[in-house]
Amino acid sequence: MNRIEALAAILREDEADAMLLTGEVNLIYVTKTTALEGQCLIFPDGRALFVTDGRYTEVAEQQLTPQGFRVITRSNLSGLYDFLRSVLEQNEVRKLMYEDDVLTVVEFALMREQLQMTFQPIGDRIRSLRAYKSSEEIDCIVRAQRIAEAALERLLPELHAGITEREAAAKLNYYMALGGSEKPSFDTILLFGENTSKPHGVPSDRELREGDFILADFGAVYHGYHSDMTRTVAFGHATEEMQRVYETVLRAQAAAEQAAKEDMLCCNMHEAAANVIAEAGYGQYFTHALGHSVGLEIHEMPVASPRCEKPLRSGIIMTDEPGIYMPGKFGVRIEDMLLIDGDTPKNLTAFPKALRILPV
Amino acid sequence: MNRIEALAAILREDEADAMLLTGEVNLIYVTKTTALEGQCLIFPDGRALFVTDGRYTEVAEQQLTPQGFRVITRSNLSGLYDFLRSVLEQNEVRKLMYEDDVLTVVEFALMREQLQMTFQPIGDRIRSLRAYKSSEEIDCIVRAQRIAEAALERLLPELHAGITEREAAAKLNYYMALGGSEKPSFDTILLFGENTSKPHGVPSDRELREGDFILADFGAVYHGYHSDMTRTVAFGHATEEMQRVYETVLRAQAAAEQAAKEDMLCCNMHEAAANVIAEAGYGQYFTHALGHSVGLEIHEMPVASPRCEKPLRSGIIMTDEPGIYMPGKFGVRIEDMLLIDGDTPKNLTAFPKALRILPV
Repeated sequence: MNRIEALAAILREDEADAMLLTGEVNLIYVTKTTALEGQCLIFPDGRALFVTDGRYTEVAEQQLTPQGFRVITRSNLSGLYDFLRSVLEQNEVRKLMYEDDVLTVVEFALMREQLQMTFQPIGDRIRSLRAYKSSEEIDCIVRAQRIAEAALERLLPELHAGITEREAAAKLNYYMALGGSEKPSFDTILLFGENTSKPHGVPSDRELREGDFILADFGAVYHGYHSDMTRTVAFGHATEEMQRVYETVLRAQAAAEQAAKEDMLCCNMHEAAANVIAEAGYGQYFTHALGHSVGLEIHEMPVASPRCEKPLRSGIIMTDEPGIYMPGKFGVRIEDMLLIDGDTPKNLTAFPKALRILPV
Repeated sequence: MNRIEALAAILREDEADAMLLTGEVNLIYVTKTTALEGQCLIFPDGRALFVTDGRYTEVAEQQLTPQGFRVITRSNLSGLYDFLRSVLEQNEVRKLMYEDDVLTVVEFALMREQLQMTFQPIGDRIRSLRAYKSSEEIDCIVRAQRIAEAALERLLPELHAGITEREAAAKLNYYMALGGSEKPSFDTILLFGENTSKPHGVPSDRELREGDFILADFGAVYHGYHSDMTRTVAFGHATEEMQRVYETVLRAQAAAEQAAKEDMLCCNMHEAAANVIAEAGYGQYFTHALGHSVGLEIHEMPVASPRCEKPLRSGIIMTDEPGIYMPGKFGVRIEDMLLIDGDTPKNLTAFPKALRILPV
């Protein structure tokens, strides 16, 4: 179903007269472009207005008119709410749906005061639509993922004893940018040695030494869509314990991938990986949820956590990222993105996973 | 005044029993560190609690105990609100101040439901405190600025015919990261030729050509504090018109710097620059506000806009960034950060401003 039509259906269901979208992510979702600034109004009959200013009129008309939007240019002289109020009055809007998960309390108070009508929260209904990716959305995420993979492939041979986590992270971000990434998908996690035991460690001045694990958790953004991958490689050599932990994480990851299928509860996907880790005796060291959905935001719903009882559905892209973190020693995490697809997910990540030992 | 004590004074003024801080920026402000995740509770008698989980206990105790915080570790097994409710009950809190400019409508609804007490919005009172920078905050911003300047100085000689805006922006971000920037202060604006007429243009595949203006608007982040600078340079040569526009912007910028003093209204600082541009006949091409405050966020209050009637005060750091944008031709913007200080602001930006013409 067309995205505008899906939003119109929500309005009809709630017997509301219009929906006002101002959040960046929802605007990219409904307009299919990252190039614009403005506000979007959707009506129950499927009409869509895009309100923008003179800087964006030309691009908005090129990109949005063919999609069925009417583009309205607002002069900078008129206040936003004065303008919106007149548009809403012309369209006889008395009940307006608003983004309660985007607007802050103070922003909503201002909107309510300025527009003076009945307000109805959208809740998680746009998020729920966004959970199911279209083929064009999947293409963007795969493109972002390929940019990230090429950047890591370029970085690894350049790692040498003495390079700092911070320098290595800077290079990885640089290579992604050169490859066409709009920005890092989130703050790149790139850690060495004992720092790899911190699931959300921040790159520091720690220098690379022989025998370290190197953990990189990072992604690119393409047309607003995010990728997410983690790889752990060894520098010079890996002890037996490092190899054992690595193989355990890899088996746990594979178990979740094999288990992931339509209608399974998200928590059961988590359990599939957690069981492998627990059986190997490392249960206490797997301290986070297995995965999260990815799209226009790096963390979307649903999540593959022990508490999430939502079902997996075809079209969801879920990360599969178990880890074992041994404080003071090292950590291992391996992460792919899985597109849920009937009984067998498609793995969107192409980067190899056999334990790689970089030459010193 | 100590930051915790300043928040306690707000609580006493509002006769509230505690203040709950969860927003990242406010947490950095009150704890003076970027290394932690958690929640902060302040009481009217000046007590401060920091609630965190096991991952951060050690660092929190090292960094916060000397500042007078009590650090409490919450098990991951207990829900956040269950835990906070018991802490609030122990402290007999009945009226809680909350971050109405941070929490979304849906987040606040959950908090209200879970904590079941009287809530009072903080409003802009923490923002107002944050407007006045301490000497340690100024040091961080200057440090970020020096990182940004060194990165631009390194980039300029590397610019050559055929390099794209995107590549140049990637290099600039890379050099800032190598210099110690935690991340770009905002999405780096780096534009060539006719694209420089877009005040918020996004780097594209446009290649650099002789006779182009090159406009870079960017900044670094150090200990959470942002810098912001814009420079416009010419590649190969500048036409007479380009030189005339450049000199006009430079004079406008100097006029605002000379005017900026304690107790002046922000709008009058804007006018000082706008008048110079209007008198030179370019008034219609200066289409944005002169400046904004900078700190833990790239845009803070107050702003030097035509509508802002707040007074400048010593300790405010305001950007001074007039521009002239001639659609289809070129644009020029020159931006420094000014620390308001009695009658004569301190310019925190050291990068030269005489029109620079790069060799082809």
